[in-house]
Amino acid sequence: MNPPTRRKLFIPGPVEVRPEVRERMSQPLIGHRGTEMTDLLNRIRPRLRTLMSTRNEVLVGTCSGSGLLEAAVRNLVKQRCLALTCGAFSERWAQIARDCGREVQVVPAEWGEPNLPDVLRTHLGGGDYEAVLVVHNESSTGLTNPLSDIATVLRDFPDVLFLVDAVTSLGGLPLEVDTLGIDVAIASAQKALALPPGIALASVSERAFERAGAVTGRGFYLDFLRMRSSAEKGQTPSTPSIPHLFALDLQLDDILSEGLEQRWKRHAALGARCRTWAQERFALFPHKGYESNTLTCVRNSRGVEVHRMRRALASRGFVISDGYGKLRQQTFRIGHMGDLTENELQELLDVIDEVLEKL
Amino acid sequence: MNPPTRRKLFIPGPVEVRPEVRERMSQPLIGHRGTEMTDLLNRIRPRLRTLMSTRNEVLVGTCSGSGLLEAAVRNLVKQRCLALTCGAFSERWAQIARDCGREVQVVPAEWGEPNLPDVLRTHLGGGDYEAVLVVHNESSTGLTNPLSDIATVLRDFPDVLFLVDAVTSLGGLPLEVDTLGIDVAIASAQKALALPPGIALASVSERAFERAGAVTGRGFYLDFLRMRSSAEKGQTPSTPSIPHLFALDLQLDDILSEGLEQRWKRHAALGARCRTWAQERFALFPHKGYESNTLTCVRNSRGVEVHRMRRALASRGFVISDGYGKLRQQTFRIGHMGDLTENELQELLDVIDEVLEKL
Repeated sequence: MNPPTRRKLFIPGPVEVRPEVRERMSQPLIGHRGTEMTDLLNRIRPRLRTLMSTRNEVLVGTCSGSGLLEAAVRNLVKQRCLALTCGAFSERWAQIARDCGREVQVVPAEWGEPNLPDVLRTHLGGGDYEAVLVVHNESSTGLTNPLSDIATVLRDFPDVLFLVDAVTSLGGLPLEVDTLGIDVAIASAQKALALPPGIALASVSERAFERAGAVTGRGFYLDFLRMRSSAEKGQTPSTPSIPHLFALDLQLDDILSEGLEQRWKRHAALGARCRTWAQERFALFPHKGYESNTLTCVRNSRGVEVHRMRRALASRGFVISDGYGKLRQQTFRIGHMGDLTENELQELLDVIDEVLEKL
Repeated sequence: MNPPTRRKLFIPGPVEVRPEVRERMSQPLIGHRGTEMTDLLNRIRPRLRTLMSTRNEVLVGTCSGSGLLEAAVRNLVKQRCLALTCGAFSERWAQIARDCGREVQVVPAEWGEPNLPDVLRTHLGGGDYEAVLVVHNESSTGLTNPLSDIATVLRDFPDVLFLVDAVTSLGGLPLEVDTLGIDVAIASAQKALALPPGIALASVSERAFERAGAVTGRGFYLDFLRMRSSAEKGQTPSTPSIPHLFALDLQLDDILSEGLEQRWKRHAALGARCRTWAQERFALFPHKGYESNTLTCVRNSRGVEVHRMRRALASRGFVISDGYGKLRQQTFRIGHMGDLTENELQELLDVIDEVLEKL
């Protein structure tokens, strides 16, 4: 028997996208300099602010989250920043900053451990940094950092910009940009927002825009100042991915009509259900109390052959992820973010149980 | 009567995309690190080489053409380049290079005039440049540069990289990358390739990759070396716009089954038909002999009120472009690139005639 060609994604992105959202991607195109586009962008703009709980401008880039993670560095860091790392994706952001020729002081936590506020305070006291890079939700280890505690520390260092990788959190975990005083929060379409990959979002504070004005070599394509100035006119500096804007337009309605609080609750319930399942059969990888509600990183305490389990799941129409990088054998990961329901997650967990019996 | 909501695009991009190509954008997503993605990328890769008549690697970026125009500068120019300009888009590339902090010697032609090889030869003889930036098809003036003559000059300056903006030419005008010795040719999806906007292509020569190895600050997201190294493994450095890859996969089949020569002939016929129409009613803007076959820039010799003409066309379901920048009042532009047939173009021209009678 051939495996089903259609497999449901339970990976930490790209996630399942509902058919009605995908269908928007197929709409006939419109000119990017006409009134239809201006109307579309002007409809999207205020709802992005609501989505991110901010009065800041929210920029839309035609790129993956990595594009805007890089842009944040290019636009806002002249020379030197501090990066809190606790896994592969936070380490990658530090690398991105080095790739842009910036000096990066890395303050690492062990994989599975959170970045703690006191450690940050000590380092900020001893150095001169333009910005701090923090990952909200580290998807290589299934961990959510204590962003609110980190924000408290940063309030005491008003010259240091607070840059947050919210790639796998926005739309799934509480993220109140203005309450936390976040200067830049970056999110990807294909994670908890349940859109196809291809665009990314960045909220940018007024003081961050001011800082950008003094940084040279920002470039053109993801120049925050140009992007803002276009956004204010209902435009984009260059042709955006129009299909993604059509889909975003619909999905913003659906997300906001579900309600942010309700969406966070649903993700909390998904996380709890997945952890209960995992703890009864395996163990959890991240430090207790810091487990993510958008994905679960399961410690492979039974020594299951993960590639065999994944292959058996694939033949039943489900995709989960193996461990990331150095955790490949030790863990596996189940994504549960986006528009997923508890029933859909339970269906996956039941199928994993079936598969585990036969391994 | 309300205007029809569906308007057919005859602008210099985004262009009309056939329904079957648009529908591919709605396909259920696949993981970006699995074998389905590797298979997809490995199917796409050799056909991109055919499309660009090259043995070079062809990189796919999730960005607009501007993103890769910027990346070419960041990856390949340490300090100083020369930019041939002849209109808004070639001037913009020069500006992009300056925005990246590079020194740019601009060698301008008047808008409507081509960049001539002898002028380039004189300037190259007198300066020390790492690269030359040339636009193949300047869509603000409807002009095609004599790329083959420019290529002949560059053969005498083997240390100077030959970078070409093929954004509105690839897939419509003959562009043989290896025959011309082009180091980087950049194209956008939403022009003569008739895909939705959101991805762009860059062919990159071996000596360009070598040059990149010596340039620091290339960044991560559009780092040519990382993009190549991923492409060789059937991967991408970060999550690509998967819907666009689905559409590209189909459209490459359709373009190559039409045949490149036939596609170029069809565009030549579209250009000829549009010019004949325009010359009988108005005049042409670009210098005779250099008119583009992917769009026609009409000199508004009758002093028609272009915004009224465009509004009347819109109410009949057709979109054309006004003049670009300083040519806004003096010209208007008709795009005829992509999968357009001569009959479809004729339909538009007939409607413009109707509209002109009533203005």
